[in-house]
Amino acid sequence: MNVSFSHDNKVTAFAPATVANLGLGFDILGLALFEPGDKVTARLTSASGVTIRKITGDDGKLSLDASANTAGIAASETLKKAGIEIGVELVLEKGLPIGSGLGSSAASAAAAAFAVNLVLGSPLRKPELLGPCIEAEAAVSGRHADNVAPSLLGGLILIRTVEPLDLVRLPVPEDLAVAVVTPDFELPTRMAREVLPESVPLKMLVRNTANIAALVSACYSGDLALMSRCVPDEVVTPVRAELIPGSMDVIDAAIGAGALGSSISGAGPSIFAFCRSMDSARHVAASMAVVFEKHGYSIRSVVSSANSPGARRL
Amino acid sequence: MNVSFSHDNKVTAFAPATVANLGLGFDILGLALFEPGDKVTARLTSASGVTIRKITGDDGKLSLDASANTAGIAASETLKKAGIEIGVELVLEKGLPIGSGLGSSAASAAAAAFAVNLVLGSPLRKPELLGPCIEAEAAVSGRHADNVAPSLLGGLILIRTVEPLDLVRLPVPEDLAVAVVTPDFELPTRMAREVLPESVPLKMLVRNTANIAALVSACYSGDLALMSRCVPDEVVTPVRAELIPGSMDVIDAAIGAGALGSSISGAGPSIFAFCRSMDSARHVAASMAVVFEKHGYSIRSVVSSANSPGARRL
Repeated sequence: MNVSFSHDNKVTAFAPATVANLGLGFDILGLALFEPGDKVTARLTSASGVTIRKITGDDGKLSLDASANTAGIAASETLKKAGIEIGVELVLEKGLPIGSGLGSSAASAAAAAFAVNLVLGSPLRKPELLGPCIEAEAAVSGRHADNVAPSLLGGLILIRTVEPLDLVRLPVPEDLAVAVVTPDFELPTRMAREVLPESVPLKMLVRNTANIAALVSACYSGDLALMSRCVPDEVVTPVRAELIPGSMDVIDAAIGAGALGSSISGAGPSIFAFCRSMDSARHVAASMAVVFEKHGYSIRSVVSSANSPGARRL
Repeated sequence: MNVSFSHDNKVTAFAPATVANLGLGFDILGLALFEPGDKVTARLTSASGVTIRKITGDDGKLSLDASANTAGIAASETLKKAGIEIGVELVLEKGLPIGSGLGSSAASAAAAAFAVNLVLGSPLRKPELLGPCIEAEAAVSGRHADNVAPSLLGGLILIRTVEPLDLVRLPVPEDLAVAVVTPDFELPTRMAREVLPESVPLKMLVRNTANIAALVSACYSGDLALMSRCVPDEVVTPVRAELIPGSMDVIDAAIGAGALGSSISGAGPSIFAFCRSMDSARHVAASMAVVFEKHGYSIRSVVSSANSPGARRL
């Protein structure tokens, strides 16, 4: 395909951190934060294929090899899906710590796909960028969409199935906010997957299906009291909490400070809490941070509306 | 408590059949049909306690001992909850076959509790009758609310927890109808419980939570195409289907005839199907009946709006 580009030669896009799982939505729910996130600048070049010129904010951990980095892979898959052969050079500014349970690799992918599509003149609609982002995630951490989907599309997304991709955007109750605290240690997703049980008692399945059904209902009805009763998960959270010293105390502190519910963000070690308002979220975040700090960690904390946009142009 | 009753000395109430489980809502979802159902006539007497004068339509299977019959127990618990000491005599007209997966014992309980409350002058609100109905179910078939709650309250009910009782009424998409076919053999709930797996693979839990979350979303959004993608259940339905010869063929016939989804009603052997309209439900019911009949069964079939009232005065 031969096209002429009547647009900027260079675009910068941002894609936010995401809270996947949200307690009992293991592998199927994800929520976008407003920020922090990753930035990708995409520039058209006369060469062919994708190159990564520079990565900042990663402490040198990420590869400049475009085929080994979710930003590079998502960019390359976006070009392929658009059917456009042209060179694209990326600069990736990591705003998210790696292995923190905030969807760092997904944010890089979403920002890159969005930036590349923009610099090409938006040949693809935003939801069409999900495929490229999922390919990127699959290459580094498994075929999941619970981080890339909300990072790209914003809001609260239910991933019914990844193959075929079947997403449902859930409404977010007005004023619902989220607090997230991140301790300064890296928990590889692989390790957090190894502790998962292979099977669960039928009774646990019944409780989890009941609670997630009620959680979805609460999203539609805005019944925050109901929401607060159905966040706890007994399948994944307890086993992963053992990998994150102090996490159960942090969750207890969140509830004690008025949170509607609290659990591990993604594979951890970040802990999130649903709150009734931004004010409540600030108070909850501070209470959670104190407990993590008592356990000897330095903390980054963030509060955000639970109804935040996803990838956006800067 | 001493009260004077300024109302009829005799009341007849009806409570409908219910479809519990609805595929992947094992133990947590139940839906009221418009009919058929059970009728209970309650009459105040000068004696104390509950007596059952007559039961019809049960082929002599049920006990006249009020403490061994869900109608009798629900009536007695309703008196107790209302704090009124008086005699009540019941006549129970069974419209539902026993052990058919249509919530027969629950309909008797709901009709009795509702009739007794009416004849007492409605000292209790309708939702307050749930406790007495659950006690009645507990005495004969386990502490579950997925039949008694919709039979009493109508519509589609999510039972988040039984203890403490936490119910959510889910909206029913406009025009949604249900077809139910019942073959002429009895499947004891106990037997249907014995085949249940003690544990399920984590991957199955993920798929079931994803599907029930999407199903609840479809109830609110009215997205019937989404609903049709998320009824299938791979945890309970396959093992119970083995107890019901021909059931998988019946389910396939329902889908082939245009049903949105189909699975076992309650513990079986009845099979239900969600349909886009009453017309579709009639066509689907006929297609399902043909298949069951090929397997040698006589069939009772019923079609109903999926948004039906529960217990009501006749």
